[in-house]
Amino acid sequence: MSESERREALRARYGTEGGPDIAWNDVIAGLLAHRTVRAFRPDPLPAGTLETLVAAAQSAASSSNLQTWSVVAVEDEAAKRRLSEVARGQRHIVEAPLVLVWLADLSRLEAIGRDRDAPTEGLDYLEMLMVGVVDAALAAQNATVALESLGLGSVYIGALRNDPEAVADLLGLPPNVLAVFGLCVGWPDPERPAAVKPRLPQGVVLHRGRYDDALAAGPIGTYDAAMRAFQAGQRIPEVGWSGAAIERVRGPGSLSGRDRLRGILERRGFGLK
Amino acid sequence: MSESERREALRARYGTEGGPDIAWNDVIAGLLAHRTVRAFRPDPLPAGTLETLVAAAQSAASSSNLQTWSVVAVEDEAAKRRLSEVARGQRHIVEAPLVLVWLADLSRLEAIGRDRDAPTEGLDYLEMLMVGVVDAALAAQNATVALESLGLGSVYIGALRNDPEAVADLLGLPPNVLAVFGLCVGWPDPERPAAVKPRLPQGVVLHRGRYDDALAAGPIGTYDAAMRAFQAGQRIPEVGWSGAAIERVRGPGSLSGRDRLRGILERRGFGLK
Repeated sequence: MSESERREALRARYGTEGGPDIAWNDVIAGLLAHRTVRAFRPDPLPAGTLETLVAAAQSAASSSNLQTWSVVAVEDEAAKRRLSEVARGQRHIVEAPLVLVWLADLSRLEAIGRDRDAPTEGLDYLEMLMVGVVDAALAAQNATVALESLGLGSVYIGALRNDPEAVADLLGLPPNVLAVFGLCVGWPDPERPAAVKPRLPQGVVLHRGRYDDALAAGPIGTYDAAMRAFQAGQRIPEVGWSGAAIERVRGPGSLSGRDRLRGILERRGFGLK
Repeated sequence: MSESERREALRARYGTEGGPDIAWNDVIAGLLAHRTVRAFRPDPLPAGTLETLVAAAQSAASSSNLQTWSVVAVEDEAAKRRLSEVARGQRHIVEAPLVLVWLADLSRLEAIGRDRDAPTEGLDYLEMLMVGVVDAALAAQNATVALESLGLGSVYIGALRNDPEAVADLLGLPPNVLAVFGLCVGWPDPERPAAVKPRLPQGVVLHRGRYDDALAAGPIGTYDAAMRAFQAGQRIPEVGWSGAAIERVRGPGSLSGRDRLRGILERRGFGLK
């Protein structure tokens, strides 16, 4: 754990020299080194990998220990191809040996209630969708930390929300279950290496005591420059960050079909009261 | 990394002997050892702790790199006391030297759009609340992994959603920002040690290929027994799991005020279309 490693990790994470003064150990070094892997070797995963990731996921906190999440492990070629279509052709979904589909799952509590003739009307509130989504996300992130510790790589697939009904059909999801996102897991292909993507300066996301709602124009300009330098290094269009980010939320037409999410959830049994 | 450590970690995590056959290293051992800490020593945190946790949080994936989250660090005694009131008197909120309030933050993109006279109507959809909540949760879980690697402990406070308007007033949150949950951070008090809480058997949450919607009555019975044994060891009421869990979602009155969440979000600027 050398000081130069720490400095290099911060430089990559923020795309600038300097950066915050942080504590350092193997775990933190691993977290800082995270990168999105979209190119996988075809090799299968070692036996026990799936069980390891699920044990890590289950070790994350869960709201009131309700454990309102589940995960479907998809390894079948045709099923991965179908998920890839939902995600507008993202090739890594087919390439990865394992795709985990993380679910906000209110159906388990509903089934227990039905079994005991006990009311579960609390499930009909937006709050409980929130609980399920947070539970699923905490679990998935623990799995991500675990898989990276094993030398594996991954990419989250939010684009499964482009068409939650197609995902539900494919995976046989009951009502009151939403596929929140996917996670492709595999061995990173060393021929097509992934890079650490810079993030906003700490001062933009960290507020001390009270939220500072002044638009941090200066730091965001610095970050746009850092992202353009990163994009140049990756040989991708040098669009910076802020312009591309607001383009992404321009209107319903820029949401890749996800402007339909509320209606879909209601049809799939979520009360959202 | 002995085999007996691995076995003991799995026994604690599932409350039974046996359990899945998983890979093992320091990182995975750390994840499996997670426990909720609600009793803190009064000692302050080392300099740089906050910056370390935020750097870890920023290293988590973010949907389309939109970084739709922020965090407020609360250390002030009176502010912690107010947060504790929102959470119905949870004492650890006052006891912990640091309370991180994790925010789904759509206001930053809104402000950039306003600044450039660019439309951001995509923010008015439920999908974008989902993006913000997932971003915030992934970030917070990375912070949790980092703090535990430093010997610190934490507890998530979902109860901030009991009254998001009070939290927004206290922390000066602008419209389109939701306090998703808090995270109390501090040194675990060795006089009041926390225990690893057992989780559902893997087969209940892990589905292979397709969702299996048969109510897993057998495994849930096993888990109820494991939880009763855990509760006996903790000298807390031996209520098991399933009965207490469905009681928690009985109806709007069992949601501690969070049945009002949808209306509150709409008043706070979220379109939720």
